[in-house]
Parts: sequence; structure tokens; C-alpha cells
Amino acid sequence: MPRSKSNGVFITLEGGEGGGKTTQVARLSERLKDAGFSVYQTREPGGTPAAEALRNFLLFGEENFCWQSEIMLHMAARVDHLTRAIRPALAEGKIVLCDRFHDSTWAYQGYGIGEGQAEVLNYISSLRQLVGGEPDVTFWLDLPCELARQRMAQRGGKLDRYEGQHMQFHQRVRAGFQAIAEKDPARIVRVDASRSVEDVQDHLYDLVQQRLAGRTA
Amino acid sequence: MPRSKSNGVFITLEGGEGGGKTTQVARLSERLKDAGFSVYQTREPGGTPAAEALRNFLLFGEENFCWQSEIMLHMAARVDHLTRAIRPALAEGKIVLCDRFHDSTWAYQGYGIGEGQAEVLNYISSLRQLVGGEPDVTFWLDLPCELARQRMAQRGGKLDRYEGQHMQFHQRVRAGFQAIAEKDPARIVRVDASRSVEDVQDHLYDLVQQRLAGRTA
Repeated sequence: MPRSKSNGVFITLEGGEGGGKTTQVARLSERLKDAGFSVYQTREPGGTPAAEALRNFLLFGEENFCWQSEIMLHMAARVDHLTRAIRPALAEGKIVLCDRFHDSTWAYQGYGIGEGQAEVLNYISSLRQLVGGEPDVTFWLDLPCELARQRMAQRGGKLDRYEGQHMQFHQRVRAGFQAIAEKDPARIVRVDASRSVEDVQDHLYDLVQQRLAGRTA
Repeated sequence: MPRSKSNGVFITLEGGEGGGKTTQVARLSERLKDAGFSVYQTREPGGTPAAEALRNFLLFGEENFCWQSEIMLHMAARVDHLTRAIRPALAEGKIVLCDRFHDSTWAYQGYGIGEGQAEVLNYISSLRQLVGGEPDVTFWLDLPCELARQRMAQRGGKLDRYEGQHMQFHQRVRAGFQAIAEKDPARIVRVDASRSVEDVQDHLYDLVQQRLAGRTA
């Protein structure tokens, strides 16, 4: 399965809580591997030992950071992930499937916490430009916040710093994804995540196949 | 002791290991308080609860970060410190005395780790501009690396991630301070730290008094 050095494809799955990103990334990875593609499956925050340590610090730590600091910590984890895992995998021609990436910072820190204020969004944009690593394609798994809440309640388990926020926070996060999807329609595809896991998976797999058209597995 | 809102003075002490920064900051703080000034004494990395948690993570943690990530973690701690402690103290008209600040990132991460490469220095400069918070005056406590090593050996105790580096690393750090002192002579004053603690202290106190000339305590 020889691929050229620059043949990798960087795919991210984004969205609020309860949209099934983690499940969909895992299934998509399996299907693409079964079809013969070389896949690197990963997630954010995290993806390298150092970034996973930061993930714990960020999601489950007791510390309360100012918004500037919280955004920079997410970016610090991301730049390690990009440098040590994502870019090397892309250079090897792999399909990189990542559960959350830059757009989550935009939606959660920019809209959820920052309430869409220009100062916060400009700060995120500056760091995003410095860090780099724009995905080739992003699937935004979107569903109404009420439905997301029902799914989260069924799932149970410990909620992290963001999952445990109030409904208005999650509505702002959704508005943040909506805003970036409108700003970058060539990269971001909205996927209706209120459907069954199987329906969403088939839809995602079709979309990925379209993007990979012409490539040999 | 009423002061205008913008009357604060931001003073940083910088330099390699063994130069006596921590001792000098503490003594300077006492003398200025005795003279009737309102002083806020602090240090980096750290200075707020969240930044101190990051300090432990950075100085004594087991994780190995890529250089981009390590620099960003220092900046994440700094922006919390600036936002929640330094800027409010300056707004109250205080003299802020800080043990290490931006120049340490330049010297340690830019020169010590980054070996003065343009890519690393540009990255630091971009973040420094985004974070802001330039000091009014900086005293660079400079001494030869051999003497610093002798002092460190006498002091004993557990060495952190940077203190425990090899001699060439410390020589590059010193070159980094030299480079930034040459670049910004209006702000940075080199102080010969090979002299006795008392001599260095008297010199620093004179320099601070010159800067505060015309101010009422």
C-alpha cells in the first residue's frame, strides 16, 4: 500500500455533547481499515502522552483558569498532538481521524465560555494561525441540545468540566459550530446526528468515500 | 498613600541559576515596604493558584513536551498571572516585583532549548505580543556559569527541569539574556551578580530609587 509522502487526509469530527462522535470515529476507522486504508485514529484534548496529561488537568482538574489561559492550554495540548502524532501520520500518507480539534476550541471556549465576544474569538484565531494544522474535511455532528441532554442522561458516568455546564452554555456551543460552518462551508459538512448510529455511520462513510474518490486504498 | 490608577511600576528580575534573584526580590520588597511603598511581590512560573499548579506540572512533572507546547504552557501560566494578579496590582498603583518573566522564556526556551533558532524565537515573539505585559524595567542578574554552578552545588536541594541541565545549556541561556539586553537597553539593566548579596542589593535599591524618583511613597 505505498502512498506518496503528502498523500495523507486529515478528517475531524466535531460537535456538542451526545452527538456520538467517539462511536462514529471508532466505527469509521474500522470500516476504512477493512477497506484497506491506513488509518490513524485519535482525539482531543489529548492524542500524545503529554497532551493526555494536559487533558486530565483541563477536564478534571480543580484549577480555575482565566479564559486566555484555558484557551492556551488547549492549544498547548494541540501543538504537541500535531507535532508528534498528526503531522507524522499525514506524512506517512495515513487517513487521520480526530475526535474534536480546532473547531471545538472555537465553539466551547469562544462561544460557550467567551459568549462569542470579538476579543475572545480574535485571541483564538491568532493562536490557531500560529499552531496551524487545518483539517481537509470536518464533519459536524449536530443535534438539538434537548436531545443531547437526554442522551447524556442515559449514558450516565462522570461529567467533565464542559459536559456539566448548563443548557444555555450548550446552546451557545451549538451556535459556535453553526457560525464556523457558515464561515467555512468548503471544509465543514453538517451531519444530522439525531438519526440512528447506523444511519449516521453510513452517511459519514459515503461522505468520506466521496472525498477519497480516486485514491487507492 | 493615594496613587493614581495608572501609577504602578512593573519591575522584573531575570537571569540564570544561582544569581540570587529570589533573595534579592524578597529583600528589595522589604526595603521598599519599609520606605512606605505598596509592593506586590511575585514569581514565575506561578503567581496565581492556577499558574502555580502549572508550575509544578512544568518544573517537576514527568511529561516531555515538544518545544512549541512547552513555550505555550509557560505563556498559559503567564497570562493567568498577568490577568489576575499583575495587572490588578498595577492598576492599584503598586510596585510589582516579579522573579522571572518574559525574558526567561526567551533565554531558557528560545536559547537554552531552542538554541536561538529563528523559528523558535519568532514563535516566542508572537506569543509574547499576544500575551502582552511588558515590564517597565528589568534587572538582569548576570554571573559566569561556572560560578553559578558552584553556588547551586552549595545550595543543594532538588533541581528542577531547567536547573538540572548541562553546562552548555546554561551558557546558551546566558547568551539569550545577553542578546535581549542588547536588543532592549532602555528596559534591561545588567547587574553584576558575582558580588556579595549585600552589594547587589544596595545596587538594585539605588537603581529602583532612580526609577521611582519624583514619586511619593
